Amino acid sequence: MHMLIIGAAGMLGRKLAARVAADGGIEGRPVNALTLVDAVPAIAPAAFAGTVTVETLDLSVPAAAARCVAGRPDVIVHLAAIVSGEAERDFETGYRINLDGTRLLLEAIRAAHLDSGYRPRLVFSSSIAVFGAPFPEVIGDEFFTTPLTSYGTQKAIGELLLSDYSRRGFIDGIAIRLPTICIRPGTPNAAASGFFSNILREPLVGRQAVLPVSEDVRHWHASPRAAVRFMIRAATMDLTPLGWRRTLSLPGLSATVGEQIAALRRVAGDRAVGLIRREPDETIARIVAGWPANFAATRARALGFVAESSFDEIIRVHIEDELGGNLVAA
Amino acid sequence: MHMLIIGAAGMLGRKLAARVAADGGIEGRPVNALTLVDAVPAIAPAAFAGTVTVETLDLSVPAAAARCVAGRPDVIVHLAAIVSGEAERDFETGYRINLDGTRLLLEAIRAAHLDSGYRPRLVFSSSIAVFGAPFPEVIGDEFFTTPLTSYGTQKAIGELLLSDYSRRGFIDGIAIRLPTICIRPGTPNAAASGFFSNILREPLVGRQAVLPVSEDVRHWHASPRAAVRFMIRAATMDLTPLGWRRTLSLPGLSATVGEQIAALRRVAGDRAVGLIRREPDETIARIVAGWPANFAATRARALGFVAESSFDEIIRVHIEDELGGNLVAA
Repeated sequence: MHMLIIGAAGMLGRKLAARVAADGGIEGRPVNALTLVDAVPAIAPAAFAGTVTVETLDLSVPAAAARCVAGRPDVIVHLAAIVSGEAERDFETGYRINLDGTRLLLEAIRAAHLDSGYRPRLVFSSSIAVFGAPFPEVIGDEFFTTPLTSYGTQKAIGELLLSDYSRRGFIDGIAIRLPTICIRPGTPNAAASGFFSNILREPLVGRQAVLPVSEDVRHWHASPRAAVRFMIRAATMDLTPLGWRRTLSLPGLSATVGEQIAALRRVAGDRAVGLIRREPDETIARIVAGWPANFAATRARALGFVAESSFDEIIRVHIEDELGGNLVAA
Repeated sequence: MHMLIIGAAGMLGRKLAARVAADGGIEGRPVNALTLVDAVPAIAPAAFAGTVTVETLDLSVPAAAARCVAGRPDVIVHLAAIVSGEAERDFETGYRINLDGTRLLLEAIRAAHLDSGYRPRLVFSSSIAVFGAPFPEVIGDEFFTTPLTSYGTQKAIGELLLSDYSRRGFIDGIAIRLPTICIRPGTPNAAASGFFSNILREPLVGRQAVLPVSEDVRHWHASPRAAVRFMIRAATMDLTPLGWRRTLSLPGLSATVGEQIAALRRVAGDRAVGLIRREPDETIARIVAGWPANFAATRARALGFVAESSFDEIIRVHIEDELGGNLVAA
């Protein structure tokens, strides 16, 4: 099987490529060719027996999408996006990459379909940013999309296009709304959601972290490992049961900041928790208040998508995957 | 006030222009300039004291949108669309007009906004085709959009763009999901929904009509007069109460074909009803089964949108507006 990852240089793209390389396939189906596309050079995963092709492309340049599908990949995982904050600051770039880029990809596939009957599996990473407050206590699978960011708007449009192109038979597509990824590896960044990861990742290695909101703030989380599992499931499962409702809100863990901190205490002790410094930030508190915090995800659960069930588990996954299985004493 | 109607040669565009011309304004605000845009020449309404400009433009040609807003209309009513059946037959034309055309219009307004702070009221005619079966018995205001046609997909995307451009401050926009317009004046056409009008309009003037579905088929209706009232309300009301949820499912009358026929019998007698010829058509029955039939429309009703409350009333409106107030004996 030939697999194409667009957005392969990002955190999830790298983890997905590494997983596929390590397993030599996805859910038992061998992958012998891997094409990694990103606007910046992606790094080929180590220890992959098949062919790896790395392409550095801007998806919003018309020829780029045709080049992506020139090798007729069987499975395409489309993760490339201008992130939320940047799409909000730069209206034009957000629409150019997140909307036009996605549409150009769909059109390149359609052109190949009309030419030769090509019809790949397309996994589109959408986001809970398609939802905008106010919300019910638990958001059901049939709740409407009223995004409060341009990024969320562009993702919601991508979902609609993907369903229509699937219904028309040009692709076999599925859009998956990922929870916020926690614990995100790397270093603290300026994203408004960054603190959800920072307050766990930094104390786990003895560093201070800033908490800008109160402990009763609730959010929707899944680990990077769960996200990779979601993408692989979406890439391989039979999509017939979805009908033409090709978008799934994925399972996650609904937890408060207080619950995150209690889990940190259980796993790493009081000294780790003592590294969290409270610095209330009105702006971040207001942004976060507009985010969804709890989903039923009934359809996705019934289709076999599984997330973590506790923050203890999310922390353990981080220790295993990012810290070599060992907790450095704080 | 300067008002622009895009899609002004269509049935609703003509009726809206005629209404504005006859009243000299909308809801008490004088209109002194009317620009009528369509792909085919629109006809200037009679007896309008202000200036009428007729432009024949294809909205999907880039310069066309800039030309539409060159006169900086205060209110824009965007009705232009490739209709459902045609957008389904011709994928590319549907996307070119219904998606690209709408986006080019929004982008032309944004360019004028960035240039001079221009920010018009934009009324976008959406459709209940944004919904796809299966449905709850009554569709609430927060039900999700899972269209089963490319037309419905394009309208749902238009709604999302309109909300984002409003939130960004480029327009003051509202999308209104019109019920099926009944009784549609004119002659029987090939649209799958045509029979809902045909079985009333034709017998009212002594002509036969074909009924291709059973009498228990339920659908969602409003008269052309109500549709014009909806557009004028949307063009003038304060949109602040909508927040950034700028799309409204409008009120209508949920009625079965049997209820339509009973109303025809009450208004025009048995002989009129006898002109309805039953010719079951599996294809039409299957298409219609996928359409929504009943909405709560709670928000729109609270905001003062009012539709007819019986088919007797819908038929009386047709007799007044299309038959000069007189029923020709069948």
